[in-house]
Amino acid sequence: MKNFVFYNPTQIVFGKDQTKNIGNYLRGKKCLLLYGKESIKRNGIYDRIIESLNKNNVGFVEKYGVKSNPVLGFVHEAIELARKENVDAILAVGGGSVIDTGKAVACGFYYQGDVWDYFTDKARIGNALPLYVVLTLAATASEMNNGAVITNEKTRQKFNIKADSLSPKVSILDPVNTYTVPGNYTAYGCVDAMVHLLEGYFTQEDPSTSIQDGFVETLVKTLMESTRTIMKKADDYNARADFMWAATLALNGITTAGIGNHGFPNHMMGHSLSALYDIAHGASLSIVFPAWLKHHAKEKSKKISRFGTAIFGIEDPQKTIEALDQFFNSIGTSTRLSQVNIPATDIDKIAGNAVMLAQKWRLDQYTKDIITAILQLGA
Amino acid sequence: MKNFVFYNPTQIVFGKDQTKNIGNYLRGKKCLLLYGKESIKRNGIYDRIIESLNKNNVGFVEKYGVKSNPVLGFVHEAIELARKENVDAILAVGGGSVIDTGKAVACGFYYQGDVWDYFTDKARIGNALPLYVVLTLAATASEMNNGAVITNEKTRQKFNIKADSLSPKVSILDPVNTYTVPGNYTAYGCVDAMVHLLEGYFTQEDPSTSIQDGFVETLVKTLMESTRTIMKKADDYNARADFMWAATLALNGITTAGIGNHGFPNHMMGHSLSALYDIAHGASLSIVFPAWLKHHAKEKSKKISRFGTAIFGIEDPQKTIEALDQFFNSIGTSTRLSQVNIPATDIDKIAGNAVMLAQKWRLDQYTKDIITAILQLGA
Repeated sequence: MKNFVFYNPTQIVFGKDQTKNIGNYLRGKKCLLLYGKESIKRNGIYDRIIESLNKNNVGFVEKYGVKSNPVLGFVHEAIELARKENVDAILAVGGGSVIDTGKAVACGFYYQGDVWDYFTDKARIGNALPLYVVLTLAATASEMNNGAVITNEKTRQKFNIKADSLSPKVSILDPVNTYTVPGNYTAYGCVDAMVHLLEGYFTQEDPSTSIQDGFVETLVKTLMESTRTIMKKADDYNARADFMWAATLALNGITTAGIGNHGFPNHMMGHSLSALYDIAHGASLSIVFPAWLKHHAKEKSKKISRFGTAIFGIEDPQKTIEALDQFFNSIGTSTRLSQVNIPATDIDKIAGNAVMLAQKWRLDQYTKDIITAILQLGA
Repeated sequence: MKNFVFYNPTQIVFGKDQTKNIGNYLRGKKCLLLYGKESIKRNGIYDRIIESLNKNNVGFVEKYGVKSNPVLGFVHEAIELARKENVDAILAVGGGSVIDTGKAVACGFYYQGDVWDYFTDKARIGNALPLYVVLTLAATASEMNNGAVITNEKTRQKFNIKADSLSPKVSILDPVNTYTVPGNYTAYGCVDAMVHLLEGYFTQEDPSTSIQDGFVETLVKTLMESTRTIMKKADDYNARADFMWAATLALNGITTAGIGNHGFPNHMMGHSLSALYDIAHGASLSIVFPAWLKHHAKEKSKKISRFGTAIFGIEDPQKTIEALDQFFNSIGTSTRLSQVNIPATDIDKIAGNAVMLAQKWRLDQYTKDIITAILQLGA
């Protein structure tokens, strides 16, 4: 096992009927209430939150309209509003896009320059407003980690930040809040969480990681099983609960602690697909990941075989990749660029975009040529 | 999955050569340096710590002599010293006994009455001194949780406390610091961590816990495998590292989050063996646990079968319990009272002591008669 620091101070409040308690944690504060679409008004989540805030004398000012692949322009507007209204906390109600927007606003609030400086490593994140979360879409684990990803819509860059001050103070995870998540977004969430787990599993520096490998395999199995159940019955509480907690554990640091250096090459390529075509993050990953695994099949054959045995009862690496491909298609996510109408002739452009992130993340082996070769396997 | 709150703000600094960094975290403080035996002077740990404290201008006053099954008398003395010397932090260097002593001192420091009031629920824990840990014996997970167990040597009660303010701020886990742990204490640690995992696994309220069950099975397998390796090669870094991290994860809340109500009936009985005969905690558990599992074999047959399949490749519940019994003996821990020279005629006395804790912990089904019946299976 490699040396590591594990520090995750987010308090998770998990379970049925927990949304109504959010006001307890914000008592005496004035918060910026961030959310995406007005859909939280239709399914009752909004009303439960407002009632809880009012009951606990929590002041709030609203800002909504966060879209998936959240953009810098919106972050700028929200920072301005937060300053004008002099809030002292942020309440993000949504999935990764809303939480990530909340994190960018939280640190941008105290920064005199453009918050994008943090994303391009021109400045270091210091103070941030305390962030509170009511999760309504399980996928990114942003509710229990210190990272965020924002797209600069002008430069077409989907970049990330990381700092301990960005970890949410309290995140409420009520599986009931995800009953109305449509099938395609459940599938994208499943892919996202699975690839979070598998990026580390397949790129780790140190192979002596029986704990971490076992945790990853447990979480992948749970994600696949619960997704299959949810596809049949959207309001299956246990499946939604398993899915939600597995997605959180998939990127809260517990499965990567001790594995040493590891990369996120699939996120690197997926982010480019999202930045250029605005396709959902999970949808981009189900295209990229099987192609990436095919590209590395020989050198990673032993680990793929371990994975296949644990997940599918299949030892053969090629058949394991096929089984994974089939699983993604079976839950309705694409595994080829052609399935989302991106022509193979665009690969050069995508690789050109992706290589910027490869350089930022120091994924040195991923030259434009290598990225092109991988994307061609997913054409 | 059942509702839960998960909050674990301890920062874990894991790995080779980390001990020398302890001073960085204590800069500007004056700490009470607690440890057990002078053995930390022989293996170099003491020197590395003192050098780091001096380098970072950390003041300290020493108090050593914590014994396994740590006692209240020592806690009283340490509180008095901490007050007299006006320390503002505690540095515990050791295993669970030293850390638990540190926790009792940390909260007792601010309490006007007898700190034992906290253990008997006569008073509620409030403030506590910040606690820092350098772990030298992996077993109890006290380095990453909010609980402590102390024995009142006058009343012969081994009781526990719990409060968020007791969670260590920083715990340094350097596997090299455990190279000199003798075989018997490695075995006791293995049993302790395994039983921490299995108490929840076999007593959980909610059976729909695929994540938690998978995590437990992964950790049990890792503990068994790494212990077998350590028995052959005491300074195998990867085995010591796997063992250390698995023991921490075994009682840091991650495997019990979501399982609902669960009990610690084996700890209840084991604590009595330690309180009455001063036998090591792990040694008491390897006697009690197989007997307890036998007692419940019928009602828990399905779960025992799942466990047997995952761990031993054995489906049959009885054979699974035998395999576990054999594993404990194979690493040198006893599984019968007779093996530690406690006669069957003492069982009545042990049950009489244990039932006090059963009442405190509200383990209502464990009457003196039931406890007697279980202990007879381990005679």
